[in-house]
Amino acid sequence: MKGVYLVTDRSLCRNRPVSEVVLQAVRGGVRFVQLREKDLATRAFIEEALAIRKVLEPFAVPLIINDRVDVALAAGADGVHLGQTDMPYRTARRLLGDKAIIGLSVETWTDVEEAQALDVDYIGASPVFATPTKTDTQKPWGLDGLIKIKAATRHPVVAIGGINASNARAVSEAGADCLAVVSAICSAADPAAAASELVNLMKGAGSESRGT
Amino acid sequence: MKGVYLVTDRSLCRNRPVSEVVLQAVRGGVRFVQLREKDLATRAFIEEALAIRKVLEPFAVPLIINDRVDVALAAGADGVHLGQTDMPYRTARRLLGDKAIIGLSVETWTDVEEAQALDVDYIGASPVFATPTKTDTQKPWGLDGLIKIKAATRHPVVAIGGINASNARAVSEAGADCLAVVSAICSAADPAAAASELVNLMKGAGSESRGT
Repeated sequence: MKGVYLVTDRSLCRNRPVSEVVLQAVRGGVRFVQLREKDLATRAFIEEALAIRKVLEPFAVPLIINDRVDVALAAGADGVHLGQTDMPYRTARRLLGDKAIIGLSVETWTDVEEAQALDVDYIGASPVFATPTKTDTQKPWGLDGLIKIKAATRHPVVAIGGINASNARAVSEAGADCLAVVSAICSAADPAAAASELVNLMKGAGSESRGT
Repeated sequence: MKGVYLVTDRSLCRNRPVSEVVLQAVRGGVRFVQLREKDLATRAFIEEALAIRKVLEPFAVPLIINDRVDVALAAGADGVHLGQTDMPYRTARRLLGDKAIIGLSVETWTDVEEAQALDVDYIGASPVFATPTKTDTQKPWGLDGLIKIKAATRHPVVAIGGINASNARAVSEAGADCLAVVSAICSAADPAAAASELVNLMKGAGSESRGT
């Protein structure tokens, strides 16, 4: 896994439909989309997932559902992202099968170590920086934490929490395989341009140290 | 389907664990248990479902999960109860298989008619009477509505909403195959005695019209 990873938040989309922001984001180069809905009824969540799956299909961008394995199964999504209070990883794998993308948030060092025994597709280092969009989290990892995680884990690392154009390069250089963003794209006046800028910052990361 | 059907509500259990109230209820003769949790994180909901499944197994009482097909699959529950904003019936059937018990709430006459085309295991006539425990519902069916539903539907009818010992016999006589209760058992000082009383009221229903 490599690239910019969008996590949706309808409340941050400035009254634009989530599907419209997602479309702009993938046009701008987003490589993964996680649909996160904490307040929708199940049926509406499934309908939203089906609509966004249609948006993503032409781009071959996988759709990952936050928490809800039932919604992922119903909508034929590509996988789920699990937090530490969501369904246990092994149960989700059993229900979704080998091909599903399953990511797991790591908020403590114990989480990082426990993930070593699991065939997760990535770990989500959360939060890298303090963020107003998600407040039920442990203390931020910071860039130092991210470096430490990257050195210790066998999994791709998706960094999330407070990432935007001002720190994207530093987060990439600290070892993040993916930059996950919420407001940096959802709230942008031009989500495609915002996505594209992040993609370019990732590409640039580490170029100096490679001597170019 | 026939008998008293408990729908849990942890906030009404008077600080007793839900599993304890469930145990007492099945000792009192409850034949179906629906676990309803609207605020628990997925992992805690699954753990609760597994614990209650263990309580029910010796009694051969099926465990039905409200709304969440993922929790039902993860916990090996016997089925789900679906409201009109939950997962569509056919999707749930596809995910849960032929043997699962799947019930569907009917709150309008259109819902009753649409359920005729579905192989649901029961319809939940909701609410029969106005109730403080669930406020996001259509207007109550009343006993007249229940008689009309029973005459029109091919499915077993589970009546829910405001049912207690004072009206249980009347609801049974109006055609309910199951009496679903929340507070009448969850909030009872003695849930086993409350369940037993409802069971007896159901048994007595219609006995006079059968000439005994």
